[in-house]
Amino acid sequence: MPQHAVLTLIKQADKAISAEDFDTLMEFYADDAVLVVQPGQIAKGKPQIRTAFEAISRHFGKTLTVTQGHAHVIEGAGTALVVMETLLHIGQAPEPVVRRATYVFAMDPTRGWLCTVDNSYGTDLLD
Amino acid sequence: MPQHAVLTLIKQADKAISAEDFDTLMEFYADDAVLVVQPGQIAKGKPQIRTAFEAISRHFGKTLTVTQGHAHVIEGAGTALVVMETLLHIGQAPEPVVRRATYVFAMDPTRGWLCTVDNSYGTDLLD
Repeated sequence: MPQHAVLTLIKQADKAISAEDFDTLMEFYADDAVLVVQPGQIAKGKPQIRTAFEAISRHFGKTLTVTQGHAHVIEGAGTALVVMETLLHIGQAPEPVVRRATYVFAMDPTRGWLCTVDNSYGTDLLD
Repeated sequence: MPQHAVLTLIKQADKAISAEDFDTLMEFYADDAVLVVQPGQIAKGKPQIRTAFEAISRHFGKTLTVTQGHAHVIEGAGTALVVMETLLHIGQAPEPVVRRATYVFAMDPTRGWLCTVDNSYGTDLLD
């Protein structure tokens, strides 16, 4: 079965993060998307999301790469919920940090699938 | 801070489940919403979702009630991701089954917030 389109987009976005290509990264987001930067802190809208990613990149000394593990896409009514293992490879750490992320995409009539909610913490927000 | 509108809707939907009022329950869903019935099995569209809830109700001998625990709503770009403890109280069981659920809502211009993806298994789908 071919991969769902949003998984291909996430893979491209992860490459943009690793390359620190934030112009390209922003193309994957709806204009008023929301990013959970960390529990209790959100970035809303592309300017804030871009600033957050630049800060995250600096925080990790520009050694962050992101890859995907297992994933499920549940598509309904013009939206798609992605539940996914997101692996954060940081510097020389021997093992990646594994998060169980949740992403929401919505189908935009002109731009196609766009990320509307980026919550890499998944249900761990409830801890 | 007042509760997010979608949390009020979920509470009303939970009441409808407990009352086995499936007509009311269906009003909370987009026409082509998706319900994760169990890992690997989805119901798509209101007729299938209704049939699934009727079967779930029969399965539990009509003793199922659903309540909410902790919850977070992350709203972006006309969608809302809900991460929530969903408590399933079944028959005379002393303790509820606690799931860490994920729900997606989208703002419909005429009908308001509607559930588009109902995944009470959250990131446990990755197990």
